[in-house]
Amino acid sequence: MAENLTRTILAEHLVDGELTPGAEIALRIDQTLTQDATGTMAYLQFEAMGVDRVRTDLSVSYVDHNTLQMGFRNPDDHRYLRSVAAKYGIVFSPPGLGICHQLHLENFAKPGATLIGSDSHTPTAGGIGSLAMGAGGLSVALAMAGEPYRIPCPKVVRVNLTGELTGWASAKDVILHLLGELTVKGGVGRVFEYAGEGVAGLSVPERAVITNMGAELGATTSIFPSDERTREFLRSMGREEDFREMVPAPDAAYDEEITIDLSALEPLAAAPHMPDIRTTIRELDGMKVDQVCIGSCTNSSYSDLKTVANLLAGRKTSDETDLLVSPGSKQVVKMLAGEDLLEPMLDCGARILECACGPCIGMGGSPPSGGVSARTYNRNFEGRSATRDAKIFLVSPATAAMTALRGEFADPATWGEPPLKPELPEHAPSIRHLFAYPPEGGSGVEIRRGPNIVPLEEFDPLPGTIEAEIALKVGDDITTDHILPAGAEITALRSNIPAISRHIFSRVDEGFVERADALDASVVVGGENYGQGSSREHAALAPRHLGVRAVIVKSLARIHRANLVNFGILPLLLADKADYDKLAQGGRLTIPAGEVTPGGEIEAATDSGETVRLVNDLAPSELEVIRAGGLLNHVKQTKQSG
Amino acid sequence: MAENLTRTILAEHLVDGELTPGAEIALRIDQTLTQDATGTMAYLQFEAMGVDRVRTDLSVSYVDHNTLQMGFRNPDDHRYLRSVAAKYGIVFSPPGLGICHQLHLENFAKPGATLIGSDSHTPTAGGIGSLAMGAGGLSVALAMAGEPYRIPCPKVVRVNLTGELTGWASAKDVILHLLGELTVKGGVGRVFEYAGEGVAGLSVPERAVITNMGAELGATTSIFPSDERTREFLRSMGREEDFREMVPAPDAAYDEEITIDLSALEPLAAAPHMPDIRTTIRELDGMKVDQVCIGSCTNSSYSDLKTVANLLAGRKTSDETDLLVSPGSKQVVKMLAGEDLLEPMLDCGARILECACGPCIGMGGSPPSGGVSARTYNRNFEGRSATRDAKIFLVSPATAAMTALRGEFADPATWGEPPLKPELPEHAPSIRHLFAYPPEGGSGVEIRRGPNIVPLEEFDPLPGTIEAEIALKVGDDITTDHILPAGAEITALRSNIPAISRHIFSRVDEGFVERADALDASVVVGGENYGQGSSREHAALAPRHLGVRAVIVKSLARIHRANLVNFGILPLLLADKADYDKLAQGGRLTIPAGEVTPGGEIEAATDSGETVRLVNDLAPSELEVIRAGGLLNHVKQTKQSG
Repeated sequence: MAENLTRTILAEHLVDGELTPGAEIALRIDQTLTQDATGTMAYLQFEAMGVDRVRTDLSVSYVDHNTLQMGFRNPDDHRYLRSVAAKYGIVFSPPGLGICHQLHLENFAKPGATLIGSDSHTPTAGGIGSLAMGAGGLSVALAMAGEPYRIPCPKVVRVNLTGELTGWASAKDVILHLLGELTVKGGVGRVFEYAGEGVAGLSVPERAVITNMGAELGATTSIFPSDERTREFLRSMGREEDFREMVPAPDAAYDEEITIDLSALEPLAAAPHMPDIRTTIRELDGMKVDQVCIGSCTNSSYSDLKTVANLLAGRKTSDETDLLVSPGSKQVVKMLAGEDLLEPMLDCGARILECACGPCIGMGGSPPSGGVSARTYNRNFEGRSATRDAKIFLVSPATAAMTALRGEFADPATWGEPPLKPELPEHAPSIRHLFAYPPEGGSGVEIRRGPNIVPLEEFDPLPGTIEAEIALKVGDDITTDHILPAGAEITALRSNIPAISRHIFSRVDEGFVERADALDASVVVGGENYGQGSSREHAALAPRHLGVRAVIVKSLARIHRANLVNFGILPLLLADKADYDKLAQGGRLTIPAGEVTPGGEIEAATDSGETVRLVNDLAPSELEVIRAGGLLNHVKQTKQSG
Repeated sequence: MAENLTRTILAEHLVDGELTPGAEIALRIDQTLTQDATGTMAYLQFEAMGVDRVRTDLSVSYVDHNTLQMGFRNPDDHRYLRSVAAKYGIVFSPPGLGICHQLHLENFAKPGATLIGSDSHTPTAGGIGSLAMGAGGLSVALAMAGEPYRIPCPKVVRVNLTGELTGWASAKDVILHLLGELTVKGGVGRVFEYAGEGVAGLSVPERAVITNMGAELGATTSIFPSDERTREFLRSMGREEDFREMVPAPDAAYDEEITIDLSALEPLAAAPHMPDIRTTIRELDGMKVDQVCIGSCTNSSYSDLKTVANLLAGRKTSDETDLLVSPGSKQVVKMLAGEDLLEPMLDCGARILECACGPCIGMGGSPPSGGVSARTYNRNFEGRSATRDAKIFLVSPATAAMTALRGEFADPATWGEPPLKPELPEHAPSIRHLFAYPPEGGSGVEIRRGPNIVPLEEFDPLPGTIEAEIALKVGDDITTDHILPAGAEITALRSNIPAISRHIFSRVDEGFVERADALDASVVVGGENYGQGSSREHAALAPRHLGVRAVIVKSLARIHRANLVNFGILPLLLADKADYDKLAQGGRLTIPAGEVTPGGEIEAATDSGETVRLVNDLAPSELEVIRAGGLLNHVKQTKQSG
């Protein structure tokens, strides 16, 4: 039986391992991308690797998360990123040029290429047929250094699209539907590969909406075939030479299959506070809406905004409803301006913000207290808008536009005729001259570091015995937001581990940092599902800076577990979960770290004379990394010995 | 001898007093404006007055200072302002519509009208022939309640413009020149009335640049005659019916006169860190510039940005220089879009920000550490950009555009042919439908208050004797930015005095708030020109909340002095400026406040046995206000006894 598209690309890039679902594979990475919030740390790590030039086909450093430049730290970060890019051969995308995923789709993503990005919505490029995955900053740094990217080989799910979208239903409703079916945990360990007769009816930007928000399924990634629609998109973007047809054979094999009848879809919303809480707009009829936000890496393309502009033209938004529009890129703005489509938006009362992530990541545009906000974004987690008691609904651009005009959700049956799908122009105007391209040789480039940009410290190897105090004991379901809060103020410290570490656990226990400071070594004890939520590696790196050498928990979330390994913190599991009660905050522990073996058991002794049995699920290679003091140390040692 | 224009308008609006320079006069106010950063407090004060409808011809509430909406406080403020406007008969300008002074000029300002605004750059409307003055929020609230506005009758300075601008010189260079001549203290107690043959060559937007930045002279206001150029502007704005010719007779009398030969001007800059540190661009030749910012209430008009767009067209900004453009209003954006002038800006690499004050008030767009920034703004106070060690130069739009292209200041002789002055179109597109106009009767409107909107506290009357510690001693030219920094985080607290007071003097002395907290009463000692800059009354109100009962200084800026009076802080002047040295921070003072008489002298005793003679320039009515504990108390008492 023929291979599916996903396995075809995996096979083309396989450096090590076998394509057996669950088994570790190592992949050659063609392209990388970073954004600023994770990028500064990724490049500090890359610098520490001592490589003189990126080894990928293409690496791009985008600035889109924090473009506000409130105070010196943020513009200093941008200047640092620009100089690193020039020195190491990376394309730099300055603040205001656009959102990384939208820009990458328009300018760089290629069918059949592998891409990893230090942003969870990197799968957007799956819309063009890239195998595009979100990863930690250190993984991206390693890929830039030429190292392969290691993941468990995913299962491939065939998403069979039948029929075609009708009425007011859109690509956004496809993924909102799928999220309702599968939940936010439904995609773990899987790639969603779209196929079937419905694919041809979707343009690349529509496909990208679906693959982008596939991240919310917890999937490894999502991908569409590369077909005539893909060629059409690439031609419009002025790079038809990047086209490569990649369509799996009709008899290609898949691990699983799910069917979506596009013609049965209607306008949907994800209700507060999870992307998988599916409801129909019809059911929300009559609910007042205080704010409507259009944009984000999910729905900020030319097609999306042209649809919106056409709906808004000649009308006025409700006096009770604010409408904020963040175009995905300057190319989108140029295309709209060229067709006189900015004026209808301005005339209807929309606020047109800069091309950036903006309100989607709580970077401005917060709703008022208790407000209802309808957003074309991809996440509606509680508090993500920076207004804790706001209620965020995720909707399509057309739904957003109609809701802004009405001031409330209304039954789409009352909206009149649905808009025609915008066609891409044969040749879209380019903004490719606005990227900063690196000079041929970067050796003469000076890295510009502001006072808030602190090079990585070197961590020492794991000691044979950890003599430590339990500096903190927490319960179940601790998230990386508990470990390290987000927000503009703390995010401005992402390139300064000593400074950002002052905020570790600050929302859980204000005394933690001071206690950890006073200790040579410390341990954190937790319950089930420790470290769930976002992938921010600062939630492992900053505790390591404070002297945390091990966490002892009932169970661990997958990405945070990987980050602990990468930064040399020993992730230990209670063999007997009842032993959790033997471990008291402030107590001292002796952990024979030197005796740890992959999957083996050790005994730790408390200062009250009790014994606690500890196990682990570490692979041999992971234990090696921890013993070295973290992945950076390990890479250096391997190079020296290799 | 005939009256000048200023005295003509004063006479038409005189409610009380005589037009003798220095004597207190009371004026009927036709129009008021507020912006959000001062407006929330002004409307809380207006609410406390118990009036059911504004009594002006027109009152407008603009949102332009903090439009970012980082967290719930800021959007809650906007919602509060919108609801207050609807209830009390005020026109509301939502965030993103534009900068108050630009919008007011385009849509509402009238020749011969009086306007006060809770923003120091309200004199912008002097460009159209309004007598427009910056005032504290409480004064604006009183004017909305129908009370006259009380000021010392100003002297009128005839600014005689001869010749005409040539080459690259622009309106901005006129006012930069005047600031260099007269300094930031040179305009105190004066109205600058422009006259002479050079007037006819300046359009209303150019005139408005000059009157706007006349605020930096410390002037009461600046004004141009209303002539055919004014009619032309009003016609373009679609409101020729608002035109009224107001040109003083050739033999009109003035108190002082100064002549500027326009033809002798060349491109100038104000160097760090004061608007009166005049230098020529020529002299700056070769200085690298990291950032260029175009916009602000000074230079964000259609004419300004069209000039910029034409200079940028077909070129690319320096890779080392960021260019940020904040258009003054949506009308400006529409006009640019209609002439395909946005694309040249996008194509050259400019970041186009929302129509708002933006980087001018440190609301984003901070330069990098140690960076040089060339800005078309009106203030370059140290730290105002939110990057403490940045060096800010104030320049014209043309200079800014050329500097962004070059990446450095360069001798204008190398810039080539200067651009033609843009002509206003016969009929500019309107955005007047985007203001929210109040309903006829507002009684049914509910005021919407978020949890951060805290009603005003009541202050106690002035004691007979102030026994206080000198909690802070500062030098000359302390601005309201020193007293209360701006920026998104602090500005979001403008409707919450207890919270914002924690930031008083935080950039000058981090220990101030804690010291003031520990004292029953405190005094601040300052040098010359204390309180210059913005009109924010929080710089008086929050210190009063912290227990500051008097300031003792060498001289005071006009609006801040009025704010001190309004909130019951005694503004005392050193009779002998050398006595400044007798007053040490941490020392105690006994001030016989009960003995203060208008213009009289008292003796304060220090705890080291020294005596300091203190005078004042208070009108009897002002002293009454201070004795009552502030203007709100005084108004209430007057009503009760009346």
